[in-house]
Amino acid sequence: MLQASVDSSGTRFRPLVVVELVSDAEEETIAWLLRRIKDPQQRGGAELLVEQLGPGVGGEEKENPNIFLVGATVQRLLSGAEDVGLFKEYNDGSMRAFTCCNKHNFTDFTGDGDSFLSMAECQFIIKHELDTLRAQDETHVPGHSQAKLYPGKSIIRRLQSKGMLIQIFPLQELEELKRLSFFWYKKVKLAPQPLDNVRHYYGEGLALYFGFLEYFTFALLPMAFIGVPYYLFDWEDYDKYVIFAVFNLIWCTVFLELWKRRSASLAYRWGTLSRKKAFEEPRPGFHGVLGFNPVTGREEPLYPNSKRQLRIYLVSLPFVLLCLYLSLHVMMIYFVMEGWAHSLHNDNPTFWTGILLFIPSIIYAVVIEVMNLIYRYGAEFLTDWENHRLESSYQNHLVLKVLVFNFVNCFASLFYVAFVMQDMVLLRQSLATLLITSQILNQLMEAFMPYWLQRRRNKKMIRKVQKTRSLQDQELPLAEQVRLEASMSTYLGTFDDYLELFLLFGYVSLFSCVYPLAAVLVVLNNVTEIYSDAFKMCRVFKRPFSDPATNIGVWQLAFEAMSVMAVVTNCALIGISPQVKAYFSESETQLILWTAAIEHGLLALKFILAFLIPDVPKHIHIKLSRLEFESLEALKKKRNHHEGKCLKPRSSVRASSEERRAYRC
Amino acid sequence: MLQASVDSSGTRFRPLVVVELVSDAEEETIAWLLRRIKDPQQRGGAELLVEQLGPGVGGEEKENPNIFLVGATVQRLLSGAEDVGLFKEYNDGSMRAFTCCNKHNFTDFTGDGDSFLSMAECQFIIKHELDTLRAQDETHVPGHSQAKLYPGKSIIRRLQSKGMLIQIFPLQELEELKRLSFFWYKKVKLAPQPLDNVRHYYGEGLALYFGFLEYFTFALLPMAFIGVPYYLFDWEDYDKYVIFAVFNLIWCTVFLELWKRRSASLAYRWGTLSRKKAFEEPRPGFHGVLGFNPVTGREEPLYPNSKRQLRIYLVSLPFVLLCLYLSLHVMMIYFVMEGWAHSLHNDNPTFWTGILLFIPSIIYAVVIEVMNLIYRYGAEFLTDWENHRLESSYQNHLVLKVLVFNFVNCFASLFYVAFVMQDMVLLRQSLATLLITSQILNQLMEAFMPYWLQRRRNKKMIRKVQKTRSLQDQELPLAEQVRLEASMSTYLGTFDDYLELFLLFGYVSLFSCVYPLAAVLVVLNNVTEIYSDAFKMCRVFKRPFSDPATNIGVWQLAFEAMSVMAVVTNCALIGISPQVKAYFSESETQLILWTAAIEHGLLALKFILAFLIPDVPKHIHIKLSRLEFESLEALKKKRNHHEGKCLKPRSSVRASSEERRAYRC
Repeated sequence: MLQASVDSSGTRFRPLVVVELVSDAEEETIAWLLRRIKDPQQRGGAELLVEQLGPGVGGEEKENPNIFLVGATVQRLLSGAEDVGLFKEYNDGSMRAFTCCNKHNFTDFTGDGDSFLSMAECQFIIKHELDTLRAQDETHVPGHSQAKLYPGKSIIRRLQSKGMLIQIFPLQELEELKRLSFFWYKKVKLAPQPLDNVRHYYGEGLALYFGFLEYFTFALLPMAFIGVPYYLFDWEDYDKYVIFAVFNLIWCTVFLELWKRRSASLAYRWGTLSRKKAFEEPRPGFHGVLGFNPVTGREEPLYPNSKRQLRIYLVSLPFVLLCLYLSLHVMMIYFVMEGWAHSLHNDNPTFWTGILLFIPSIIYAVVIEVMNLIYRYGAEFLTDWENHRLESSYQNHLVLKVLVFNFVNCFASLFYVAFVMQDMVLLRQSLATLLITSQILNQLMEAFMPYWLQRRRNKKMIRKVQKTRSLQDQELPLAEQVRLEASMSTYLGTFDDYLELFLLFGYVSLFSCVYPLAAVLVVLNNVTEIYSDAFKMCRVFKRPFSDPATNIGVWQLAFEAMSVMAVVTNCALIGISPQVKAYFSESETQLILWTAAIEHGLLALKFILAFLIPDVPKHIHIKLSRLEFESLEALKKKRNHHEGKCLKPRSSVRASSEERRAYRC
Repeated sequence: MLQASVDSSGTRFRPLVVVELVSDAEEETIAWLLRRIKDPQQRGGAELLVEQLGPGVGGEEKENPNIFLVGATVQRLLSGAEDVGLFKEYNDGSMRAFTCCNKHNFTDFTGDGDSFLSMAECQFIIKHELDTLRAQDETHVPGHSQAKLYPGKSIIRRLQSKGMLIQIFPLQELEELKRLSFFWYKKVKLAPQPLDNVRHYYGEGLALYFGFLEYFTFALLPMAFIGVPYYLFDWEDYDKYVIFAVFNLIWCTVFLELWKRRSASLAYRWGTLSRKKAFEEPRPGFHGVLGFNPVTGREEPLYPNSKRQLRIYLVSLPFVLLCLYLSLHVMMIYFVMEGWAHSLHNDNPTFWTGILLFIPSIIYAVVIEVMNLIYRYGAEFLTDWENHRLESSYQNHLVLKVLVFNFVNCFASLFYVAFVMQDMVLLRQSLATLLITSQILNQLMEAFMPYWLQRRRNKKMIRKVQKTRSLQDQELPLAEQVRLEASMSTYLGTFDDYLELFLLFGYVSLFSCVYPLAAVLVVLNNVTEIYSDAFKMCRVFKRPFSDPATNIGVWQLAFEAMSVMAVVTNCALIGISPQVKAYFSESETQLILWTAAIEHGLLALKFILAFLIPDVPKHIHIKLSRLEFESLEALKKKRNHHEGKCLKPRSSVRASSEERRAYRC
């Protein structure tokens, strides 16, 4: 798998990662960068293999010559696997951190170990090594005196933030990709997705997304099965949704708790559950005044937290509130339109006015999508401007901003119809229109548009190559393949995909009791989503670097917040249902008090359930404790062995201040 | 501090811990136990020093001869400190795990290090070493064929569970104790408690309790200050409690969040914050069928979880429910009495019937205390019978049982008066009576009764010694001192103390808005509590072993649950207040809806606040991250150093199955 491949472009090793610099990069900069990448680790280099990509077949008119292929020897990759703390299956069936010293005890290690690491893992390792390639005594990037460097600064990140590095991306494996896409989306079947293969090719982060999508779809099936007869037989009987609301309420609690367990199982199998997080680097765009980081003791830009807080509370927060106000204003315009269409239909009902009734909802749904999109840009700009030091903190702030707005934007009108107007017919109609319109728009924008663009590019490239020589079985030579991949769009992460699922989860858990077909629609959407997402990953986007995720992160919290809201909403819907109201006909006060009391009880039950159901299945918990126990025992044994000898002073655990100073200068 | 002390009983080392066996123990058992304690560690012993306590001065009539003093060399204690993972201050000001190898880099290490460890730490180490003294090839305790042993079983725990070992306890340091008690409770002052000294003498668990008690008292001061004028000027104006309720609501949220930070500061300073938990041993009373523990691979008793669940859900749960029912029944009887007293007073009001009005409340308060006490025994018995493997799981189940009952028992009548009867005058009167009566009862039972008993014992012992020789400055010889301490009551942990604070916190946070003096009363109680608790620790009870606690554990959760309930209760109290009712005079429905909406908003705010306020103060967070970063760096450096050489195979981290088998037989 990791054999050296020699081909027309003259590469003497298996290329794994592509580094693209700007076409007018200085010779001096390129030479320096290549030297630092190739330098042995003792001299502070990355000890990787790197080669320039040869010119394309057709012409050299507008081609960027500064594309480099990066690879590494098997030995280097294995030591890198130890650096990044990769977990692999040990010969006793448990998952352990890989170490070169006892590599032969790992299940899949045979021979030299050249098929031990998957290509995605190798690419991840190379990315890590490139990212942690640090400046030594350079004060600026050679050839670019304005691009400052200081000891310990990641070179790649500086080149990125100064715009000298266009992109780094991992190469596709065409054979593997063909096999994966065949199992994944080429044949329509009822089997679960090939999650292990997805993880093997794209890494844990993406595999967890597809795992969650699949789990969500399966979890909706019972609701969809109950929904169909409900819809068929009780369609006009608006009162009968109480049982369905109770079902919803239990469902959304159990759903998330069981997902935590499933996610832990997957993460354990893939070795990310107990993997230690590496120390987080500052984001590429982070800037500030040079100072000493109190944690690492290194010189790096610092940005006072108080300034960031000021920006958040004095600019971002008012911006979000203003956007929310605008969104509510648009909602009120929609209701005016709605009323106008109704009055027109009631005055003189014809077929065309009947259709006109749906027009305001459809327009509103489109406007919602457009507003979400515009807001998204604003939120990204502001979060960037808030200048967060860590990528994770940037992501959290972005997710929070986007979630709050999208929630209000998508659901405000439904809440208004349900609880202020208390018009269940209109609620049902709005829900259906919103759900269907947004699904159609999403699928269009997400998969078909990019596919159409990419197809044009592919055809152009093939035509160009065919000009000079004839192609056997459509396979492009490496140089063209790399350039083709470089021109593909970049996959921006699972953010938008999770956001879509979050909104769908909202529609289902909050209001599906009044429109039982919602679950059916969401299931249908999810099935097509699986295929279109798989398709877009394989065909439309550049391969992304794998991301060793342990769980779905901040989204778990977001879904849980939504499920709390679902409990409250469903209780309130039950409270205002004609069925229940008839029961408490003599006293409205009693009705409200009972609703509130039951709702509090259910919320308490929800928290107790979340507390009682263990987040990790028992068999995995046992395996984790065994590992912990064994390392404790080994530590004890080692200590007894060393007693009084102190061959290897433990003070090495502490980089002394001298060492640190030496590191800095 | 650890110098050898030679005295009349012939001990040649500083005695730290006392082990008391039953007086009719077999010679063979004693000889075996002592040999195992003294044996070097290579042969599986504890490598401690042990000596029999000489006979007392007076007579040998009823004295137990089988009392042993245990100590250790400084070297052994230091290696034990490494075993238990003690954290100490390093010479760069951070807290690091102590290791013998770089002992000279720790701030307080001078000379041979004989004053490096406090006596409490030494005693904790000896207890740990005794607890982990394991059976090797013995199949039973020599001299007691019915006391089965199996390889790896803790010897001390078996002796305890078979009743052959009466007790193990640490010795007092009389000098130190005198100094501590002088600063702690002998002079009345407004300064904070000497927490560091308490921790030095009694360990972290108890010091955290006193820290929490002090923090709770200080946190109540603003409430008490607001409460007094409220009480004096608005006493008869029952409507004006809305502002006070709002204050309560904010107070109880902020209170707990800030405590988390304070607790983290204390735990960091005391070195328990990042200390790793040792592997937890089964409780002494745990029994089951011999099998293989899936985590350790050792042979030990196993008890199926399903059986335990059956016991919990089929016996314990019904028992708790029955007790709750009884408690509510008693409450209804109280209300009948209350009504009867009132009707008597209203028919013919005299001074005596005026006093009679308070009698039912006082009787009810006493009955509540008695019921709490009886229930406590039942809960302990049942939790014991549930046969939990770990002490922590036993504690959690006991705390849960006791908390639920005590909460209902103490607060049910107040809730009934507040929300069903909506009688604020009666609520105020009940609250005052309950609070005052329970405080008086508690102080009596907790400190003065045991003190009175102990004083009699002390006097008896002194009189006995004085019979044979005259005592200078009241100091007893070692043999008598040990026997005196052995006869003192055992301190059963902080459970009851925290429980009392929990109930006080409930009175204050739930209902203090209708009786603003509650905070004042609780402050007064807490101040006397600090003194009486300090007094009882120093004079009434045996010294307890120190307990390396990181925080107040399950009590944090309990207090947080109470504060959630406080938000709900205060909102409801505001909702039923005449002030607010007057505002919504036209529509009760509107009032309830607004109350519910605001309550939901406040609960959401509470959770968001808890999420936003970091649990660890920033400067400690930085120190912890620095430590983590340095150990990551050192690991990387070490790895680069070892690259390819593999001098020390990492496979040692894994106790191979052969080794484990060897360990078992």
